[in-house]
Amino acid sequence: MAKWPLPYPESPPMRLSQFHLHTSKETPAEAEIVSHKLMLKAGMIRKLAAGLYTWSPLGLRVLRKVETVVREEMDRAGAIELQLPTIQPKELWEESGRWQKFGDQLLKIRDRKEAEYCYSPTAEEAITDFARQELSSYKQLPVNFYQVQTKFRDEIRPRFGVMRAREFLMKDAYSFHLTDEDLAREYRNMHAAYSRIFTRLGLRFRAVQADSGAIGGDASQEFHVLADSGEDAIAFSTGSDYAANVEAAAAAAPGPRSAPAETLRKVETPTQRTCEDVAALLGIPLARTVKSVALMAEDGFVLALVRGDHAVNGIKLGKVPGLAGHRLAGEAEILEHLGCEPGFLGPLNPRKAVRIVADREVAAMADFVVGANEAGFHLAGVNWGRDLPEPDVVADIRNVVEGDRAEDGGELRLARGIEVGHVFQLGRKYSQALGFTVLDENGKATVPAMGCYGIGISRIVAAAIEQNHDDAGIVWPEAMAPWRAVVCVINPKNDPTVAEAAEALYRELAAAGVETALDDRGLRPGAMFADIELIGIPHRIVVSERGLAAGTFEYRHRRAGESENLDRAALLARFGL
Amino acid sequence: MAKWPLPYPESPPMRLSQFHLHTSKETPAEAEIVSHKLMLKAGMIRKLAAGLYTWSPLGLRVLRKVETVVREEMDRAGAIELQLPTIQPKELWEESGRWQKFGDQLLKIRDRKEAEYCYSPTAEEAITDFARQELSSYKQLPVNFYQVQTKFRDEIRPRFGVMRAREFLMKDAYSFHLTDEDLAREYRNMHAAYSRIFTRLGLRFRAVQADSGAIGGDASQEFHVLADSGEDAIAFSTGSDYAANVEAAAAAAPGPRSAPAETLRKVETPTQRTCEDVAALLGIPLARTVKSVALMAEDGFVLALVRGDHAVNGIKLGKVPGLAGHRLAGEAEILEHLGCEPGFLGPLNPRKAVRIVADREVAAMADFVVGANEAGFHLAGVNWGRDLPEPDVVADIRNVVEGDRAEDGGELRLARGIEVGHVFQLGRKYSQALGFTVLDENGKATVPAMGCYGIGISRIVAAAIEQNHDDAGIVWPEAMAPWRAVVCVINPKNDPTVAEAAEALYRELAAAGVETALDDRGLRPGAMFADIELIGIPHRIVVSERGLAAGTFEYRHRRAGESENLDRAALLARFGL
Repeated sequence: MAKWPLPYPESPPMRLSQFHLHTSKETPAEAEIVSHKLMLKAGMIRKLAAGLYTWSPLGLRVLRKVETVVREEMDRAGAIELQLPTIQPKELWEESGRWQKFGDQLLKIRDRKEAEYCYSPTAEEAITDFARQELSSYKQLPVNFYQVQTKFRDEIRPRFGVMRAREFLMKDAYSFHLTDEDLAREYRNMHAAYSRIFTRLGLRFRAVQADSGAIGGDASQEFHVLADSGEDAIAFSTGSDYAANVEAAAAAAPGPRSAPAETLRKVETPTQRTCEDVAALLGIPLARTVKSVALMAEDGFVLALVRGDHAVNGIKLGKVPGLAGHRLAGEAEILEHLGCEPGFLGPLNPRKAVRIVADREVAAMADFVVGANEAGFHLAGVNWGRDLPEPDVVADIRNVVEGDRAEDGGELRLARGIEVGHVFQLGRKYSQALGFTVLDENGKATVPAMGCYGIGISRIVAAAIEQNHDDAGIVWPEAMAPWRAVVCVINPKNDPTVAEAAEALYRELAAAGVETALDDRGLRPGAMFADIELIGIPHRIVVSERGLAAGTFEYRHRRAGESENLDRAALLARFGL
Repeated sequence: MAKWPLPYPESPPMRLSQFHLHTSKETPAEAEIVSHKLMLKAGMIRKLAAGLYTWSPLGLRVLRKVETVVREEMDRAGAIELQLPTIQPKELWEESGRWQKFGDQLLKIRDRKEAEYCYSPTAEEAITDFARQELSSYKQLPVNFYQVQTKFRDEIRPRFGVMRAREFLMKDAYSFHLTDEDLAREYRNMHAAYSRIFTRLGLRFRAVQADSGAIGGDASQEFHVLADSGEDAIAFSTGSDYAANVEAAAAAAPGPRSAPAETLRKVETPTQRTCEDVAALLGIPLARTVKSVALMAEDGFVLALVRGDHAVNGIKLGKVPGLAGHRLAGEAEILEHLGCEPGFLGPLNPRKAVRIVADREVAAMADFVVGANEAGFHLAGVNWGRDLPEPDVVADIRNVVEGDRAEDGGELRLARGIEVGHVFQLGRKYSQALGFTVLDENGKATVPAMGCYGIGISRIVAAAIEQNHDDAGIVWPEAMAPWRAVVCVINPKNDPTVAEAAEALYRELAAAGVETALDDRGLRPGAMFADIELIGIPHRIVVSERGLAAGTFEYRHRRAGESENLDRAALLARFGL
């Protein structure tokens, strides 16, 4: 038996001739989004069946980069890794009630003995079962367990490649706490860890408040990678790290209302049924008009008012007392209450008494324009208190828009995002359902509070491409690239000194910790460079007979337009060496 | 956006107070074998359902050690890692015919659209599907793809913990070749890689020929970890690395037959029906007697002869021409052919003509003892040619025994083993069935030859424990231990200098690359030491007030009976520092 440890020899050079690289010039017809297209063209993934993808050697290198950063930061944050089974018994999922509730996304399985299982799409039940076997005292809390594991969700319409695959790689963490305060502390700890993860990966991202507009501690946040193709619209502030789904985002409250300066007047608007048309006709800014939206709610007819350049936000409206179940009013209902057809509606002179819910911005307006409740007419110079009573309710009922002032004093910007992470204060839902208690300091059985924290590792790869690509292909952030650098050998068989110089450079970079590949495939320069651009390697170095004669290497950064001829010292300096 | 790379800070000390360690003094009743018992007692695994185990943080550390060594050696051997989906479509498994043939171990699944899939128990089909999409030219061969992945086999009786779990972690590799010769080359390459893997893991193992006794290149070998509790009996030679399943193992052929020295004589053996009893009665070695086993085969009654101290090997017997479908003869058949009841059977004086199949050893005997075909009598001094005709067939039809001479000149030893790896020259079975061809040098479509190479990563953990344990618990080889060393702090709260000294030592060892844990849990020494022995840490160092006063640390190796007091330099020397 050899003595331990056996010396682990220096790795052989990573030669692309010995690696499996399989790019394609054709744009795959099945791919709808750019990351899916580029992952197929670069040969990172191959489809096995709907929503099931093989990660090729190239793709897996990138996936592992993400996985490693996630693992390092989870460890650093004090979370402890374990591994739960992917196949989990029905009985456990029945304890939480999710065997039914999860719906058809839960892949259900019968074994040879007809016992029922599912392929875990998430693991709150399994981890709580582990915890109730392992943890019995407050002394063992707090604890945060995580795993990096293949998950399955039986999506009804899997698409976009690994962006919405059925089988995917996820990091899921679950923490247990004696008190809500301690849960909140760990939530902030995970929030910070997630921020470090996405920062280290080199991605532009925002932590988005999913369900409330208030700045500050929240029970749930989503981490989004910013990309124009993102499914979610988010708003973020230039003044802090505040970000929220557009539907949940809040702007700062408006300043005080100005004093009336105009007199109330009726203006002819024969064909002007929209605020845009009315503003154009009157030659005033759209922001001086008010849109009246007729609703039916629990206690009858309601007129919701937002500025002409704003849109009503149904979720915010639903939070106004009495408006939880509101719907748009029909034409008959509008005629009954306002005596007018849509297009000319307003809060003045209704046929019947009408409840007015005004957006905060509208309540702060003076000298505004509304419909006259008379076909072909609007009212201008309208002022609260003077021309109509103050609104029954003033609330934030609109979507924020680009340029809104944020509560933190910054400006709101709109962007689109791809959700890649989620931190969530679960509370006691699962620990209660599964009967998990620990003894507290006084020997009393206590149900621990629980947090859960997920990251879609395979999804991050696609999201990073959505954010970082150009016409030539993928533009990896350095931390995610399959290799940071590639040394390209021109005509390696022509002149052995070229191959030798390339390998010497490769070894120098590798020894200095720069993960490098050697492109010794002997392709023509054009084809070779196209591959290297397509697969997105940050630093490309070309070793050629001509360059060696001149004592230079041709260097190009993936984000740079031009290549440069650098001598050895200048080249190494690009890597901080 | 922060500059890349972000500095990754020094890891915090691995404090056991912050880790989740959960040992148990009780011996779990459900566990039948020692590795299962110790993994439960050490808290390495917890059962979720039959054959489904959670790997606790402690268990996962060990699993990852094995995974890392396997990955490093596969990379070093030139194999390329990828990742196939765990869920695979029925259609693919029907192409190979294994959807039916695999049997009930294949976990079959229906998705929400009633499409059928299985949870991959192995991946020949999926990799061949990947290969036929990716590889089209001989220039892309040879190539060896591997993955480390969760697999599922729906065992009818899952037991022994992770030794025979349903969900398990496996490394599976698949290579593709233009010629059989190149497949044989890669087979040898993988064989060497596997040998490095098990050597690095610090395990006693043998590469066992599964299906033939000949020394030399073979189409299939199993790698076994040696352990008394192993399910498989294997024979290995002291003269080379030859090893085979006992049923397949071959000893060297015997030397030439001696000349007759005794006369044929009939001896009374009234109650002596076994070779042992006859040898005892006559005062001769058991090896001088011959056992007669009566069989019925295709062409009638056969008498198989092996030495009294040997056992007939049914598999070898089945390879003798005409004996493929043999069975033991019944009493009536024996009476009909030999005219005698069992216990006194022999090849001389049968009632009817009988075919004699003699083991090579029996054919080389002189002056031996056999039954007389007459109740109560045996014949002694029997010699071939003189007293009866030469055997109809001479062949190797026995099991080898401890001490047999091996074909390589060494001696055969018997051991028990646990199969943890398998290398296999598959040939063209799957590439043919899935219609996978590449163009050869002449532009001709050619079906590539294929090899497959598996390692049961989770099984290795259990096998290592079966091989390495004592009454106090697990005795890890250094390469598999959760930590190589643990620094135990006695009464950390009593005297802050003790905790400081322990942490300083921890940091020194960690900085020198010795993976170390700090046991700062504040347990009583007895309980702490019992834990550390149970979980099998190779090096234990105790920092105490008394030791510090004397300028020493108490050091004990897990395999040593006694602890020693060492000064700092002597202690570091134990780690080669």
